[in-house]
Amino acid sequence: MEERNISQAVIRRLPRYYRYLGDLLENEVERISSNDLSKRMNVTASQIRQDLNNFGGFGQQGYGYNVKYLHTEIGKILGLDNTHNFVIIGAGNLGQALAKYVSFEKRGFIIKGLFDVNPRLEGMSIRGIPIRKMDELKNFIKDNNIEIAVLTIPKEKAVEVADMLVDTKIKGIWNFAHTDLKLPKHIIVENVHLSDSLMSLSYRIGHQGRKMPQD
Amino acid sequence: MEERNISQAVIRRLPRYYRYLGDLLENEVERISSNDLSKRMNVTASQIRQDLNNFGGFGQQGYGYNVKYLHTEIGKILGLDNTHNFVIIGAGNLGQALAKYVSFEKRGFIIKGLFDVNPRLEGMSIRGIPIRKMDELKNFIKDNNIEIAVLTIPKEKAVEVADMLVDTKIKGIWNFAHTDLKLPKHIIVENVHLSDSLMSLSYRIGHQGRKMPQD
Repeated sequence: MEERNISQAVIRRLPRYYRYLGDLLENEVERISSNDLSKRMNVTASQIRQDLNNFGGFGQQGYGYNVKYLHTEIGKILGLDNTHNFVIIGAGNLGQALAKYVSFEKRGFIIKGLFDVNPRLEGMSIRGIPIRKMDELKNFIKDNNIEIAVLTIPKEKAVEVADMLVDTKIKGIWNFAHTDLKLPKHIIVENVHLSDSLMSLSYRIGHQGRKMPQD
Repeated sequence: MEERNISQAVIRRLPRYYRYLGDLLENEVERISSNDLSKRMNVTASQIRQDLNNFGGFGQQGYGYNVKYLHTEIGKILGLDNTHNFVIIGAGNLGQALAKYVSFEKRGFIIKGLFDVNPRLEGMSIRGIPIRKMDELKNFIKDNNIEIAVLTIPKEKAVEVADMLVDTKIKGIWNFAHTDLKLPKHIIVENVHLSDSLMSLSYRIGHQGRKMPQD
């Protein structure tokens, strides 16, 4: 399938389509019009058609979308038809919580290793996965075909660890550290800045009632 | 200070300014030009000026920004000069991890209570905060002046709990559940959809090398 240059905004929306279609599947809905999908998702029907046209369409005029087919196809576009091995670096509270999050596995994201600098954690296991020392990381990535590193470490450590990852075959970093990482372009960084998110919420609570146009 | 109608994109960027200014403060930088800030943050200087002009400026031509002043002022805009009491609903792995996250407290977000439907968790405490039963929630919110509810529960429960929260004085929901909540406008919902974020990363890894224009 030919794909055009896809904007960041479309990429942000794709997982949301996937999620809504998954919910429809769970509710045994077989097909849905872009109008109905539009109402559920609170985006315009023309936005939906335009987004999906980036990937070649999928709908038939007057018939709507086949839910299962569209779910599968968007899953493929998102790379969910393959498995992706990942490691978590930083086995503190958040790292351990993510390690225990089984939904990731259902989507093909397989946790292979947990790493921490803290010697007190050595010998501990989470869901049967031992917490390893940082000096084992590089070889572990090579030997286990690791694609993604999840960083759940303080910002001071994150920069250092990210620099170390540049020398590996890591393709992406899921960064929970409270800093932006500056890395070569071949390593994709996806940030989850929890404090930023909480501060946005705080802003919006404080400025409630103010009109906030969507960009 | 007169504030104009602020776009979502600016609101997203404000916490990032706050974070970078905080880093500069830690490094004892006293003032910075919009050009220098621009290079660090990887946004254009004119974007920075434009963003900050929404709130009345803060810079002097040829002088740059006073880091401490700007940090404080953006903090005020974000509502960080006040404390915000919150509860976490769902004391599973993620809920417990967030309860232990002390950085939130430093910014004025004070955890007051933890709630869970699971009777096995009753009597447990996280950082001295007992895990309470859901039927205590409404009174607890009223008695403790709770502004924010953090939802770290499965999506099926999230809709039900959110509906219950509509009858309280909750101002905002920080939603980690894997679903979008449809609530009256006076309740602000800020979503952290971890699976969506991981799928975006997966997409970008799979389509590496493709040009991705910013929107």
